Amino acid sequence: MPELRRDPVTREWVIIATERSRRPHDFRRSEANNMPKPEWLQNCPFCPGNEGQTPPEIVAFREAGSQPDTPGWWVRTVPNKYPALSTEGELSRRGFGIYDMMNGVGAHEVIIETPRHDLHPATMPLAAWQEVIWMYRERALDLQRDPRFKYVLLFRNHGKTAGASLEHPHSQLVALPMVPMDVQLKLDGIARYYDYRERCIYCDMLYQESAFGKRVVLEDEHFLVFTPFASRFPFEICILPKRHAAHFVHEPPEVLQAFAAILQEVLKRLYHLLDDPPYNYMLHTAPINLEREVMFHWHLVLVPRLSIPAGFEMGTGIYINITAPEDAAEHLRNIS
Amino acid sequence: MPELRRDPVTREWVIIATERSRRPHDFRRSEANNMPKPEWLQNCPFCPGNEGQTPPEIVAFREAGSQPDTPGWWVRTVPNKYPALSTEGELSRRGFGIYDMMNGVGAHEVIIETPRHDLHPATMPLAAWQEVIWMYRERALDLQRDPRFKYVLLFRNHGKTAGASLEHPHSQLVALPMVPMDVQLKLDGIARYYDYRERCIYCDMLYQESAFGKRVVLEDEHFLVFTPFASRFPFEICILPKRHAAHFVHEPPEVLQAFAAILQEVLKRLYHLLDDPPYNYMLHTAPINLEREVMFHWHLVLVPRLSIPAGFEMGTGIYINITAPEDAAEHLRNIS
Repeated sequence: MPELRRDPVTREWVIIATERSRRPHDFRRSEANNMPKPEWLQNCPFCPGNEGQTPPEIVAFREAGSQPDTPGWWVRTVPNKYPALSTEGELSRRGFGIYDMMNGVGAHEVIIETPRHDLHPATMPLAAWQEVIWMYRERALDLQRDPRFKYVLLFRNHGKTAGASLEHPHSQLVALPMVPMDVQLKLDGIARYYDYRERCIYCDMLYQESAFGKRVVLEDEHFLVFTPFASRFPFEICILPKRHAAHFVHEPPEVLQAFAAILQEVLKRLYHLLDDPPYNYMLHTAPINLEREVMFHWHLVLVPRLSIPAGFEMGTGIYINITAPEDAAEHLRNIS
Repeated sequence: MPELRRDPVTREWVIIATERSRRPHDFRRSEANNMPKPEWLQNCPFCPGNEGQTPPEIVAFREAGSQPDTPGWWVRTVPNKYPALSTEGELSRRGFGIYDMMNGVGAHEVIIETPRHDLHPATMPLAAWQEVIWMYRERALDLQRDPRFKYVLLFRNHGKTAGASLEHPHSQLVALPMVPMDVQLKLDGIARYYDYRERCIYCDMLYQESAFGKRVVLEDEHFLVFTPFASRFPFEICILPKRHAAHFVHEPPEVLQAFAAILQEVLKRLYHLLDDPPYNYMLHTAPINLEREVMFHWHLVLVPRLSIPAGFEMGTGIYINITAPEDAAEHLRNIS
């Protein structure tokens, strides 16, 4: 019989229905990315030499003496050419009858992770990937100085079916003028639990998952990696810091280095287990510039895009997951 | 500059960012469904003669004297072969540490809309489509007699990229043991507005959309069709009954007939404008078997699947829509 499980933070139900369950092999794409990619592509706007095809760079880690918007960089951040939000202007709210709207003020940046067109986080050297994570921190720190912004989301779309419109490896960052409702749902859940238990729910999750063990993928000194109890998607993964911390950007360098390493290890395992699957990951961290600090425990959620949410999910918000997280964790442990 | 718009019921923000906007023609799929489909397919479990490949039928509209699970039907309802929920068993709730779960009790049915493999709602005769809508009513009425169920969702997935795993035209129906959170969000929004205004927000929306006009697609005596102010997706469409009514199933036959006709007209326009696009539609109606009646105004939401929600949407719940609903409505009006 299918099982309904509730996300302990957001209280959203998911349905774990494994009758149609597939083995990791069956999720592998037949067409696969078997075509080797070139190291450099003439018409790729993110490849070195094509810097003029992006808006002027915001910041880059680059060789001493090299000029902005020229080669010589190893990680490069530029504004999104088609931004979902605009950095200019004031945040004006207005209404029209029953409707509310506001200016689309915010920031939308692209972090180009490497000059190499053919690499990505699962295949680049760890030292290079750690530089990308350092860029995450730099950009988030910079944007949270802008008092108009209340939330910064770092995320990565990998593969066309996960919404990546450009193949060259990149992450994205959005700064928003409000706390989005889905984030508020998490904040409310954390506060509700704290009121009742006087403990952080993510700290309790850490303890319970570690003791239970069946959903643990791997762990090290700083992080626990597990498949969430109420996973909405097959092979959904959570990376949770062991030490309670609200803000990703305030972590010390050694924790960020460890984070880069364990995230890369997770991406490598997915790459091998599921044949370079399309995925999204989202870095959830505490809101900024609020009147008072809110309770949070930052974490990364990674969602391979192996199934298509359809009318049922869109009509209810309830996801049907055909792979039990316990099975997913076992596969992910064994491929090490 | 992009514009942030708020759904007046759920309070969810969407971003209308039209810089990357495309004309309807650019959304058309190059590969398209140009391959004509056969009227009958030997290995399709929903084609006549293959009734034994589905679980035994629950009910069918069929020729007098024809036997269940044999040909002679024109609309046929069967349990989903891989149900997300099971009709057997009690609704037992339990916990494990910080986690909550319950038995996956519910119903998951498939409404096979026609014996013809090659037809669908945009192409079948109106009289045949009206029979399908009548089946919607029959099944929803029957399921709401089961006191274990609190919510019935009717929905349709069209096309592979909208999650339809079988090509033969069909709708689906799910009965759930609880009111899903996304539905509760609507109920809360309706109640909040009622508290403040003492009016139904959907009735006010009807009035404002009709007066404003720019988002109206079409209307008749019984229904207004419009593109929502805070459309999350390009060409998102809402069909709203003009007379306030909480429950779809309690509508009189003439309203259901008119509903079938206007829904078919909408599907025909999408079919021609966007070249038979993949889509989902969800019929939102009031919950059932609650201790007291809740306020609701039933409606249908239709979402063409022309873009891929990615990390931004998954990390915030905010959708980026590159087509302004006013433009979508204009295209949909002009193709009549």
